[in-house]
Amino acid sequence: MKLATLKNPTLDGRLVLVSNDLTLAAEVSHLAPTLQYAIEHWPSLEPALREVDRALNQGLMDTGSLDTALPFAPSAAAAPLPRTWQWLDGSCFLSHGALMQQAFQLQPIEGMDRIPLIYQGAGDDFLGPCEDIVLPSEEHGIDFEGEFGVIVDEVPMGTPADQALDHVRLITLLNDVSLRALGPREMKTGFGFVQAKPSTSFAAVAVTPDELGDAWRDGRIHLPLNVSWNGEWFGHPHGGAMHFGFHELIAHAALTRRLSAGTVIGSGTVSNHDRSVGSACISERRAIEMIEFGEIRTGFMRFGDRVRITATLPDGSELFGAIDQRVVAPSAE
Amino acid sequence: MKLATLKNPTLDGRLVLVSNDLTLAAEVSHLAPTLQYAIEHWPSLEPALREVDRALNQGLMDTGSLDTALPFAPSAAAAPLPRTWQWLDGSCFLSHGALMQQAFQLQPIEGMDRIPLIYQGAGDDFLGPCEDIVLPSEEHGIDFEGEFGVIVDEVPMGTPADQALDHVRLITLLNDVSLRALGPREMKTGFGFVQAKPSTSFAAVAVTPDELGDAWRDGRIHLPLNVSWNGEWFGHPHGGAMHFGFHELIAHAALTRRLSAGTVIGSGTVSNHDRSVGSACISERRAIEMIEFGEIRTGFMRFGDRVRITATLPDGSELFGAIDQRVVAPSAE
Repeated sequence: MKLATLKNPTLDGRLVLVSNDLTLAAEVSHLAPTLQYAIEHWPSLEPALREVDRALNQGLMDTGSLDTALPFAPSAAAAPLPRTWQWLDGSCFLSHGALMQQAFQLQPIEGMDRIPLIYQGAGDDFLGPCEDIVLPSEEHGIDFEGEFGVIVDEVPMGTPADQALDHVRLITLLNDVSLRALGPREMKTGFGFVQAKPSTSFAAVAVTPDELGDAWRDGRIHLPLNVSWNGEWFGHPHGGAMHFGFHELIAHAALTRRLSAGTVIGSGTVSNHDRSVGSACISERRAIEMIEFGEIRTGFMRFGDRVRITATLPDGSELFGAIDQRVVAPSAE
Repeated sequence: MKLATLKNPTLDGRLVLVSNDLTLAAEVSHLAPTLQYAIEHWPSLEPALREVDRALNQGLMDTGSLDTALPFAPSAAAAPLPRTWQWLDGSCFLSHGALMQQAFQLQPIEGMDRIPLIYQGAGDDFLGPCEDIVLPSEEHGIDFEGEFGVIVDEVPMGTPADQALDHVRLITLLNDVSLRALGPREMKTGFGFVQAKPSTSFAAVAVTPDELGDAWRDGRIHLPLNVSWNGEWFGHPHGGAMHFGFHELIAHAALTRRLSAGTVIGSGTVSNHDRSVGSACISERRAIEMIEFGEIRTGFMRFGDRVRITATLPDGSELFGAIDQRVVAPSAE
C-alpha cells in the first residue's frame, strides 16, 4: 500500500491511499482521518485499507465498488506525517563519516561502527515533497541530505533488535535539510543539532514494506537513491550499504524509553564507498573535492536552487514519488 | 489560570481548569478537548476559559452557574501536554556547568555564556506528576533534574528575542530525568542525547504567566524550586539565576525554523552559585562533593526511591502542584 496525506486546513491533513502508478488517490478518511491515527490503530485498520487498495489498483472505482477516487497530485501532498511526536535521524553510512573526517581532519567519532549514531530531530513541522524550503540565509550553508526512513508503531522500552522490524509499518524517502555553517559549533557543544537542522521534507508517499519486495531485507532498503541538483545528476548511492539496519536503530533508541506510534527514524545521508555513484549531500561532495583536488569546488545551495530526490525500483518506477523542492528566502514565499 | 490534563483512554487526555488551591477541577472539554487544541486556538478560546476559571474560583459551581466541578487529584493527572510535537531543553544555569567542569575536569563548552545551549528532546511520551519512572537499569546512573519550562504557541521563524515572550502561553515545572552513565558518550559524539534522556515528567498544573505576578519577569521564573529525595531536603535553588531568559531560548531555536504551537522549552536544571541552597540534580551534588571532599559520596537513584519537586510562591503555596515520583524497574510496574 502507498499512503499519502493531502493538505487541508488542519495541521495533520487528510489520509488517502495512492495507486501503484501514483496517478490516483482513494478517500479513506472514513477509516482513518490521518496517518497518525492509522499508525496508532494499524492492526484493526489494515484489512479495510487493503480492501480499498485492491479496489483502487484493480480499477474497481469504475465499477462503483470504490466510492471515491481522485487524481493524485504530489503538489497537493503534505509529508505523509505532516508532524510527528518523535523524529530520530541516524548517521549509518560509514563512508560518509569517513570522507568528512579525512577531508576536514575531524576527530573520528568513537565507536560509530559499533553503536548507532542518532540525533533527536524536531518533528513538529515537516514539509511535503514540493513545498518550498524557506530559510533565512544562504550564509548558513544550505545542504540537502537524501535519506531513507521508517515509521514505526509503538515500540516498547527494551525491544531487542531481533523483534524491532515487526514495528516497521511504513518506509519513506526524505530530505534532511542541513545548515552546514551552523552544524560544527552545535556538535562541539555535545548537545546536538537545533539551528543546524531545520524542517525535514518527505516524499509524498510512504509505503508498506511489502511494496519493496526483496529490496526490503536485513532492515535495509536495497535501492538506489537518486539526487539531482538544478536538473543535473548529483548521485545515486545505494541504500543497501547502510552499516546498521533499522532494527538496530530502533533497539538502540528504545533502550531507555518507549517509542510512540508514528516515530520516524532516518538512515542518515545515503553514501557508498564507490565514489563513482556520487553523493546524496553537497557536504560529502565537498569532502571528496578536498581529498581529490586539495580544494573545495562546489558551493552550497542558493535561493532559487532546486533539489530532486527519488528512489527507483528495478523497473525504473519511482517508488515514493519525487521530492522536488526549491530553496527560497522568507520574502519569496 | 491553571490548566491540567486528566488521563483518559486517549493519548492526549482531557483538559480541565484547576482551582487556585488545586482542590477542584472544572470541565472545559466543550471548549477545548485537549491542551494541545487550546494552545493552537488560544486567542479565540481564552475569554471563555477565563470565564469558567472565574466561576471555579469564586465557588459559583454551588450556585449552578458552573456546570461541572470535580475534586482534583494530581494522581489522576497526566503531564499538561502528555505528548508534544517539540521539546527543547536548555542548560541555562551557568553555575551548574561550571561545577561539572571543575569537578570532572571537563572541557568548558565554548560560548555557553553567549549562545544558549539547548538539546532537542523526545516529546512523544511525557509522564504525569505521580507516575512511576520506569527504567531498565540502576547502572545507567538515574538522576532527576528540577527545571522550569514554558509552553509557546506558534513562533514564526526568525522571531527576535524582544517579541518572543508574546508567545509564552503557559509556565510549567518539570523533572528532566537523566541517565548519567549514558550521557558522556552521547555528548562526545556531538549528536546529543538519545538514550541518556528518557521520558520527562511534569507537574500536574501548567499556569498562565499572570499566575506568577512579579515572579515572571525578564523571561525568567523568580521562584525557588524545591527538591527532596526520599523525603529529605536536597535543594531549593532559585529560578531567577537563569543566565538566558526564555525569550532568548525561543529566539535561538526559531532562527532557522518555525516552532509549532505546543512546543515546550525547558530552562535546564536550576542551579545557583550559592552552594547553601543545595542542588536540583544529584549529578551537581556529586560535583560539589568532588570539589569539597575530593571524592563522590552520593550515589544515583535506586529503584524504589522517590523524588519530590515543587515551586513555591512567597505565600508558601505550591504553584504547579508537586511532582512526586518513584523510580521503578520494568517488572515492578
